[in-house]
Amino acid sequence: MTAKVKQILDMNAFSPDSARTTDPNSLLGRRLNNFGAASVLFYRNPIEMAGGHGAWLTAKDGTQYLDFYNNVPSVGHTHPKVVEAVSTQVGKLNINTRYLSGVVDDYLDRLKKTFPDYLDNILMCCTGSEANDLALRIAMQRSGKRGFIVTETAYHGNTLAVTHISPAALKKDPLPDHVVAVPAPFSRIYGQDPGKGFAGAVKQAVAELEERGHGCAGLICDSIFSSDGVISDPPGFLSEAAAVVKKAGGLFIADEVQPGFARTGTHMWGFQRHNLSPDLVTMGKPMGNGFPMAGVAAKSSDVKRFCEHVGYFNTFGGNPVAAAAGQAVLDIIEQEGLMENAHLAGSHAMAGLKAIRQKHSQISDIRGCGLFIGMDLCVDGDPDKPDPALASDLINALKRRHILIGAAGKYGNTLKLRPPLCLSIKEVDIFMDSLSQSLNQLI
Amino acid sequence: MTAKVKQILDMNAFSPDSARTTDPNSLLGRRLNNFGAASVLFYRNPIEMAGGHGAWLTAKDGTQYLDFYNNVPSVGHTHPKVVEAVSTQVGKLNINTRYLSGVVDDYLDRLKKTFPDYLDNILMCCTGSEANDLALRIAMQRSGKRGFIVTETAYHGNTLAVTHISPAALKKDPLPDHVVAVPAPFSRIYGQDPGKGFAGAVKQAVAELEERGHGCAGLICDSIFSSDGVISDPPGFLSEAAAVVKKAGGLFIADEVQPGFARTGTHMWGFQRHNLSPDLVTMGKPMGNGFPMAGVAAKSSDVKRFCEHVGYFNTFGGNPVAAAAGQAVLDIIEQEGLMENAHLAGSHAMAGLKAIRQKHSQISDIRGCGLFIGMDLCVDGDPDKPDPALASDLINALKRRHILIGAAGKYGNTLKLRPPLCLSIKEVDIFMDSLSQSLNQLI
Repeated sequence: MTAKVKQILDMNAFSPDSARTTDPNSLLGRRLNNFGAASVLFYRNPIEMAGGHGAWLTAKDGTQYLDFYNNVPSVGHTHPKVVEAVSTQVGKLNINTRYLSGVVDDYLDRLKKTFPDYLDNILMCCTGSEANDLALRIAMQRSGKRGFIVTETAYHGNTLAVTHISPAALKKDPLPDHVVAVPAPFSRIYGQDPGKGFAGAVKQAVAELEERGHGCAGLICDSIFSSDGVISDPPGFLSEAAAVVKKAGGLFIADEVQPGFARTGTHMWGFQRHNLSPDLVTMGKPMGNGFPMAGVAAKSSDVKRFCEHVGYFNTFGGNPVAAAAGQAVLDIIEQEGLMENAHLAGSHAMAGLKAIRQKHSQISDIRGCGLFIGMDLCVDGDPDKPDPALASDLINALKRRHILIGAAGKYGNTLKLRPPLCLSIKEVDIFMDSLSQSLNQLI
Repeated sequence: MTAKVKQILDMNAFSPDSARTTDPNSLLGRRLNNFGAASVLFYRNPIEMAGGHGAWLTAKDGTQYLDFYNNVPSVGHTHPKVVEAVSTQVGKLNINTRYLSGVVDDYLDRLKKTFPDYLDNILMCCTGSEANDLALRIAMQRSGKRGFIVTETAYHGNTLAVTHISPAALKKDPLPDHVVAVPAPFSRIYGQDPGKGFAGAVKQAVAELEERGHGCAGLICDSIFSSDGVISDPPGFLSEAAAVVKKAGGLFIADEVQPGFARTGTHMWGFQRHNLSPDLVTMGKPMGNGFPMAGVAAKSSDVKRFCEHVGYFNTFGGNPVAAAAGQAVLDIIEQEGLMENAHLAGSHAMAGLKAIRQKHSQISDIRGCGLFIGMDLCVDGDPDKPDPALASDLINALKRRHILIGAAGKYGNTLKLRPPLCLSIKEVDIFMDSLSQSLNQLI
């Protein structure tokens, strides 16, 4: 990320440097004193939230914000069934998995049914970072290699090992020697057949890793490419790259933290939409609608090989409260038809955005599926002139209209739409009106 | 760990190899199919738990077990105040820390008051593993070095980076080149002044790390040495080793996941009992009484330096539900006088164990403070003849008497007492009677 883009992106975020002028007794001042430089707050004037329901968050001052950003409370903020499941189970039993508990395996049995049969084990942990950290290690053990291929603005989490494969998290340091980043499969980069171009780049990366003496342990992809700026089409575009990696003895790891749990509108998992057969699948964020839980789906043979070398146990992972929350999330997705709703509301949103694009040449591209959409903003609509300042202004203009949203991508010029899956058509329309008004005002 | 010790230790645990004879439709069979080789279950016949209250767990078959093992539900299983705090907050708001929320900083302000003033930032994450992973990185950034010193049976968590500094987790592979393990400060190893001897070993380890070209980024210690087999005395025995590391430009990291939150009976944190000034403090397990949460206390200058290089954000870390759970835990420790109780019940337990030792020469040593006690079992009471088989038999005999307990240490011959802090004197007596009967039966 260039210094200039970084500077512009920071316009969306509260800058801890403003601490000098912040009342240390205010909530913001206290936060800055508590988290210090690790304070990561949205907006120049951060919002104090007090409540949430469905697709809405309520600020302390009573303002209702329509949430187009947060993908963790995926079935809706404070969904009563999740609240009930957590409250009931935390009052009954919360213990680690060294003891048996029916609720845990009821959940795992059900979750496993959403995966291909060959992924016959699920290891439970607490965060997507832990899931990806574990997946990297299983891949290294199986392949006997240590090199990984990622996309150039990928973010896979925050442990040391996972930060190494997360170019988006690095501010100054280069990627370590065992990691090679390739551009994400944008057609503007790879041309009309981005899958083929991407596979070519991955093949080069494999050769590079072999030359460096690391070999290729795996390719890890978030199949919706959230932090790269959202790429969804054409379905199947990752097959060739996955095949290249498998041929080289590496594993294909599907990071489903972002596209998973029905968000893409037609499948439970992003890799299914692309008809892929990942060796490992990691999941997190929406898994418990905010209860800290995550997991790795793997082949039992790979788990066995890994566990011969290392004793893996996760104290909080797969506890009965997490299982109850996870079970409620699966119930709600099914009973409320949230996958279908993600498809319907997402299609309505996509149509709305395309109509708005007709009036605003600054919108150079719109990509996505279900309720995961990216909209590029460029000067004169020229894809070579990304306009992160406009994205930042738009985010702030939408905040003034009580809509929460964020940006993504290498240049920070991609508006990222990622609302709860329970979003109604009416709420899509509220967003479209606000977006349209904001664009009219700004451009 | 030798193969023989490993084999004996496994006698306490369910062996997944028994899967062949397990009904795949039983709960145990389903668990083995779900977790595969990563199934980590206690006892040859694992217990299905259904409920818990105070220091007791209730199995599905109605049996009540007195819990002398689990240190996560530290204020008592399903404590009503934690249940209420979690239930209320999860129904109100559960969101990440990119937005402000009063409950989060109310908690952090209070938690910070338990630390020395110079530790002025707290970074929130979800597990002790994440906390230690983060601490290692902050230490590497501050020191400009990458080598770490640990004790030889240490366990600090399960990420890749943290497994590297956890000899207890490695089954086959040697420690990586950047990690040097030294024997924990046992007086049977270092003599009458274990602190001095330990400091000498740490000094050698620093020299070794420098010779290997890594330098010393830090020494990380759980000050109660839980997995090494519990070492508590004399208070202050770590000062010299910490000074050696600081002089070499490394950091002293206090891993408080085990001794923290008042367990040692006289101080909130283990490092305070030893009058240490750690550069970093990590905490986890009992922090939310089972709600997945953890944290790192650090100097703001170190956090700033770290964040200049890496964007650190933890999606679930420090969410309002975790903060509510954490606040309830601090309330309960204070209102119910659990630190004092840990001291009283722990002293009563220590006296009881010493009385039992008079009758059983196989008990070669008893160490500990508050409600963290280790009791060594050796053939003929000879410290050079550890008897893990007796420890295993004792664990199973205590299970038959409905007491849950576990073993620790390099040889697995240390019975580890680590009950919830709300333990009553009467419950200590129940344990002592059962222990005495079990020993009489076994020896």
